[in-house]
Amino acid sequence: MIKDKVILGIDPGTVIMGYGIIHITDNKPQVVTIGVIELGKYPNHYMKLKKIYERVQWIIDAYHPDELAIEAPFYGKNVQSMLKLGRAQGVAMAAALNRDIPITEYAPLKIKMAITGNGQASKEQVANMLKHIFHLSEDMMLPQLDATDGLAAAYCHYLQSNRPKADKEYRDWNDFIARNKSRIIK
Amino acid sequence: MIKDKVILGIDPGTVIMGYGIIHITDNKPQVVTIGVIELGKYPNHYMKLKKIYERVQWIIDAYHPDELAIEAPFYGKNVQSMLKLGRAQGVAMAAALNRDIPITEYAPLKIKMAITGNGQASKEQVANMLKHIFHLSEDMMLPQLDATDGLAAAYCHYLQSNRPKADKEYRDWNDFIARNKSRIIK
Repeated sequence: MIKDKVILGIDPGTVIMGYGIIHITDNKPQVVTIGVIELGKYPNHYMKLKKIYERVQWIIDAYHPDELAIEAPFYGKNVQSMLKLGRAQGVAMAAALNRDIPITEYAPLKIKMAITGNGQASKEQVANMLKHIFHLSEDMMLPQLDATDGLAAAYCHYLQSNRPKADKEYRDWNDFIARNKSRIIK
Repeated sequence: MIKDKVILGIDPGTVIMGYGIIHITDNKPQVVTIGVIELGKYPNHYMKLKKIYERVQWIIDAYHPDELAIEAPFYGKNVQSMLKLGRAQGVAMAAALNRDIPITEYAPLKIKMAITGNGQASKEQVANMLKHIFHLSEDMMLPQLDATDGLAAAYCHYLQSNRPKADKEYRDWNDFIARNKSRIIK
């Protein structure tokens, strides 16, 4: 049960970065805002990185999220694109680290699975599910389909944080024992 | 001819990050400081990234560099290591972007070539050349061989900045014309 928490979700890309903020009160999540940072218009790599950093910092200072959830693919086409993606993730993370906001990463498959029950769901399927869950209007959705990827990361983090510890995968036997003290026969 | 400039050079790694600062007065570069940020001791990836960000910001605020030169490999073993490296570069860059410091990247081969004349030079060869150029003492060198990679990036940037424009490679024919107006026959 989450009494009160604000989660910022980010899907950092090198062309468009989507973000979404949810506020959870008495375990009920509501969308505060969703948006995108369009990076294609900036002529060079550094201006894109600077824009990501500034905008994420601005979002953090405006909405005071308690936690950052970030969509982080672990595999990519090639080393070049992964380096660029790593930099985009890095500057977004730096903005959060600079404000001591804890970061949790989720693989795209994990986010899709958490929201739709299908790790191979399309962007539209994820967006439609979020629209249904949060009663988002068409106005809010249509211009910003990419923004729902950020919202998806935030909502996935809420679902994960809200799961009782014992439901999570155990790291090892010691972890199982530690989380299930009542089951030890003395 | 560079009248007065401070260059910060960084070699961002995920285990050790080396940095070096040179101050150029009347075209004569001198070492201000060299150092390393040891990251191996931090238990997780985010603490490493946070440490890089904080330390680079601290260095910037302490030494007020005018420009940042960064050693940036463009190829790596695999996408995983490139993503991690990209993040380390990203947070270091964010600290510079946050202070509006221009960034220039140099491939390792380019740095080695600029300093030793050999793109395949070893770390020791680069260090020895820098030791010779800057009259570095053994005390300064020995504990911090990795730091000389940062210094190497800074010195390489000085050498590049100091080359007359006409010596640089031309981007295209228009660029050649623009930089060689005196050669146009009217």
